[in-house]
Order: sequence, then structure tokens, then C-alpha cells
Amino acid sequence: MSAKQVSLTGIKPTGTPHVGNWLGAIVPALELAKRPDVVSAYFIADYHALTTVRDASQMRQLTHEVAATWLAFGLDPENTLFYRQSDLPEVFELSWVLACMTPKGFMNKAHAYKAARDTNVEKGEDEDAGVNMGLYTYPVLMAADILIVDADLVPVGKDQVQHVEIARDIAGRINHAFGEGTLKLPKAELQDQSAVVPGVDGRKMSKSYDNTLPCFLTAKKLRRSVMRIVTDSTPPEAPKDPDDSLIFDIHKALLSPEETEALAARYRGGISWGEAKQALYEALEARLAEPRERYEQWIRDPDAIEDLLASGAVRARELAGPVMDRVRSAVGGGRP
Amino acid sequence: MSAKQVSLTGIKPTGTPHVGNWLGAIVPALELAKRPDVVSAYFIADYHALTTVRDASQMRQLTHEVAATWLAFGLDPENTLFYRQSDLPEVFELSWVLACMTPKGFMNKAHAYKAARDTNVEKGEDEDAGVNMGLYTYPVLMAADILIVDADLVPVGKDQVQHVEIARDIAGRINHAFGEGTLKLPKAELQDQSAVVPGVDGRKMSKSYDNTLPCFLTAKKLRRSVMRIVTDSTPPEAPKDPDDSLIFDIHKALLSPEETEALAARYRGGISWGEAKQALYEALEARLAEPRERYEQWIRDPDAIEDLLASGAVRARELAGPVMDRVRSAVGGGRP
Repeated sequence: MSAKQVSLTGIKPTGTPHVGNWLGAIVPALELAKRPDVVSAYFIADYHALTTVRDASQMRQLTHEVAATWLAFGLDPENTLFYRQSDLPEVFELSWVLACMTPKGFMNKAHAYKAARDTNVEKGEDEDAGVNMGLYTYPVLMAADILIVDADLVPVGKDQVQHVEIARDIAGRINHAFGEGTLKLPKAELQDQSAVVPGVDGRKMSKSYDNTLPCFLTAKKLRRSVMRIVTDSTPPEAPKDPDDSLIFDIHKALLSPEETEALAARYRGGISWGEAKQALYEALEARLAEPRERYEQWIRDPDAIEDLLASGAVRARELAGPVMDRVRSAVGGGRP
Repeated sequence: MSAKQVSLTGIKPTGTPHVGNWLGAIVPALELAKRPDVVSAYFIADYHALTTVRDASQMRQLTHEVAATWLAFGLDPENTLFYRQSDLPEVFELSWVLACMTPKGFMNKAHAYKAARDTNVEKGEDEDAGVNMGLYTYPVLMAADILIVDADLVPVGKDQVQHVEIARDIAGRINHAFGEGTLKLPKAELQDQSAVVPGVDGRKMSKSYDNTLPCFLTAKKLRRSVMRIVTDSTPPEAPKDPDDSLIFDIHKALLSPEETEALAARYRGGISWGEAKQALYEALEARLAEPRERYEQWIRDPDAIEDLLASGAVRARELAGPVMDRVRSAVGGGRP
């Protein structure tokens, strides 16, 4: 296992996923697990969610939902590392050591804090109003998440590259101060984000826009959600321009290039919106029926999820323990 | 043990102590261990020192020196809790949870950060120049140090009261958000600081003034250091005003009120500075000879110190484990 590179994906527990999460994030992240040269590690970042979640049962529910989701979509806990952040105490100890080598200026530039500060300033409030230290030091904990498992690769979208660069920079400072090889320098691997799925209002599908198609609706509710998408009054038999259709845009995210071409031809030949929606619904249902069933099985059995995360934690700590030992010995902390 | 109150003292590993540390901090802190209603806990805050110490062997040396010092002055590891911060992983996990409930504004007001910022501003530099996140988030880790062992009392000097108040405030926020009783609210106990010992130049004895009398010099070197204290040219037989003598000021820190009165009488009756210094040296040597011997025994046996800290950590974790379990279950982290 150690000869392979470790690729690490963090999963924030934010509830049941929508089609945009599934196609834009989960599918590409799970593709990584197929690479024979890579050990794929996935962790549920529950303690990151603590910056906003203030309820234990909600936290557990969110954790179980996100675990069930990834398992439903094919995460294989045997051939990957799958664990929960809060089951790895090493992460938090490393986080403190990293903090001691992290210039405060790094945090001032981090996206999440800058966004909160800008909003405060716009509203004429104190720039730190409502900002807690979890939000502010978030990039340090994220660096610890990455460095504690000796991750080589961190597949990320564009807006997350900064976090990997901060981790890499802090690791470099640790190595410079305490000895080369203390921490492994991770690399960001920019993920293909072409699969941006529009929401039912045409904007990017996002919970904050309330325009999502949730993945795990019943078939009936899924169909109803698709049928409700607003279309124009072009007569049913009139040719439709696929490049100007939201239904087509969502649908093509599910198709191969050949299938996309075939669907475009149907649009150009004249398809009623009802038929177009039915075709979209059927395509979704064909891909979601099995995952939905698996999702529901997992959700009905939270103990099984906990067992699985517990054994994942044991394996993750086999990576994290030696890293923390190296760090302790480099800085002179803990029992030699 | 659980019926007793827990009193917690943090010890920063800053090298061999001087007479000012001994009489001003170590003696009063060790007095606490005599109270029958209290379990006294002392921990070496090595990971706090990481904000400045950048060398493993120096860190271990500082840790061993400070441990040997406290043991030499009578810390009884059987009847107190004596451990090293970095041996308690629970501290760092708790620290993250606390951070998520700590307004960033608290840190901006903390003494150590404010001092660093003010110095930067005075120099015309960026206000965060040279400030690392360890220094900035220090009060959160300090709160975790206190709260992780359910400390009831934290004996502190005036300048440390703020830290206990921050810990108490954060604990209150955790309890409010996640359930009363999640964390115990600690109280600061203002320590008598009347035993401020002047240094050899008359200012407060402090390493930063380079005016200290180190505790564990050889008898010969200790005598030489005392003899070197600069005095005026009053003739040997002339009466001396004890209230205007640095030698007297240092000496009286070692004496009971009766002994102080007797010494003052000798000064008024006429004492040569040589005699006065010799008397001071003898008083120091009488109190320091045995601790010096014990100190040297410990320093010669770092493994014995490590064993002792290891068994202290086991006992401290018996307090910390249940606290962290309570917190995890309150916030919904880790395995239920």
C-alpha cells in the first residue's frame, strides 16, 4: 500500500445530495478509486461542519446521510480508505503544530474568511462580526487533514486549490525548520469541472438557490420534480434548439457524447416538452434507482455505517500514527 | 478523587528557573498541593512553547529542566497530577471544538497578540508581521488545557486572569449551545504575588532584564553572583537603611516577618555590604542546597523524568477521556 500514492478527498456533511453534487463532485471523486497507482482516501469532515452545526443529532444525521450517499454511489470501503475526521485525534494535534508555523497573514487571505469579512464590511458591521475561530483557522485544520495521511494528491475544484497550496506551504515551513521529510508535500490535482449541472431555474444547481433535483427522491417525486421544470410555449411538434433548452442541458450531463448527439437530433426533429421531460426523468431514474435503494438500506442501518467508519478509522490511523510520531519527534513533543 | 476540586497550574518550559520564579511562582503553586480539598494538577505546556521553540532537543531539554525544577522544589508526583501537555491528545481535539464557539474578537483582545501587534504598529510594520497562528490562537488552547481536566480552580497572577475568563466564557457558550454540564466552568483564583523578587539591578527579576540569580548554580557560583551585586560606598560600620537596600529586598523574600525584623535590626546597627551579601548567600544556599542536589539527580536521569511524565499522562487522561467523551457526544462527533 505504501508504494502507491495517496489521494485525499474531503467530504463536508451537508445533507442529502442533489444531481449537481452527484455528477459534479461524487462521480469524478469516485473515478479516482479506479486508478491502480493510487490509494483513494475519503473522509467526512464533520468537525469542519462544527463551525455552523450546533446540534449533535443533526451532526450525526448529516454524517450518516453523506456516508450513505457515497456508499450508494459506489464508494468501496474495502479498496479505499473511508473515515470520519473526528475519529482521528492525530489531526487535531497536528493542527496545533502547524498553527505554530503558519503566518496569521495566510488566514486573512483565505476565501471563506474573506467572504465573511467582505459581507460584514458591506453591511457596515465590525469586520469580524459573527466570525468564529473555527471559520478563521479552517485552512490550518484542512492542512492537517491532508498532511496527517501523507497525501500525495488532493483532487480539487479551482476554488479549493488555495487550501492545498496553504497545506503545501506550511509543510514546507515545518520541513525547513524541523528537518526535511517531516511532512510530505501534497499536490493539488485540478479536477475536471465540466459537468456543471444547471438547476431547475437555469442557474448552477445549488442548495442556496433552492433549484436542485435531489438524488434520492422516490421515483414518483423525482418525476414530479422534473415535470415541474418551467418550459416555454413552443408548440409540441415544433423543432427545439437543444442549445437553448434547460431540459437538454440537464439531460446531457447524464449522457455520452454519442447519446448527446442522438438526443439533440430528437430535439431538432421536434419533441414536445412533455416527452423531453419524460426522457430526462427516465434517464435519471435509470441511473438513480439502484443507488437510491442502496442509500435507503444504509440509512436504515446507522450502526452499520458506524461500524464501517470505525474500521475505516483504524486503517486511517495506521497512516496518521506514524506521521504524528515523525512530527512529535521532529519538534520534541510527547514521549520520545 | 472526584469529590475534590481540581486546581490546575500550567508551566511553560522556559529553561532553568531563577530565584524570582522560585519564590514568586513555584513556591505558591506548590502550596496548593497541601490543601486537602483540592487535587493539584500541574502540566508542562510544551506545545505552547512551540510558538517560539524550533528545535526538538532544545524542547526536550527545556521540558526536562522544568520538570526537574518542580520535582526538586517538592512537587510530589504521587499526590498531584503532573503531566506534559503534548501527551494529552484530547487537549487538541477539544481545542478545535472550542474554536468553533470562540468569537474571533476574543483573540484580538488577548494580551500576547495585542502586545505583538502594538510592537509591529510602532515599528511601522504590518500589524500581523511575525505573528503565527499559534500565538494568535493561544487562548483557545489554554482554554482547552483548563477545560479538558474539568478544572475548578486556576491559580493565576493578575495578567493571567484574562485567560481563565476566556476559558469560562467559551465553556459557557458550549454549554448554552450543546447542553448544560458539557463543560465545567473554571474559576480564576488570584494568587498572592507579594513575593516579587528584585533582580541584581533592582528591577523585577526577569530573564529579559538579564538580572537574575539562577536557582541551580553551584554554591561557589551562587556566592560569586551575590557578591557581585553592586552596592554603594557607605562605610562598612555605618548604619544601613534596610528599606533602601537591594540586598535586603532580595534577602527578605526568603524570611518570615520575625526574621525580616531581626535582619533589619542588623542593618540599622551597622553591617558591612560584604557581611550583608554573605548573609544573603547563606540564606539562599540553606534553602537551595537540597533542591539543587535533587535537580541534578533528575537532570542526570531524563528517562526517569519521561517515565514519570508518562505515568502522569495516564492519570491525566483518566480525567480528560471522559470530558472529551462528553463533548463528542454533545456535539455529535466521533463514534457514539
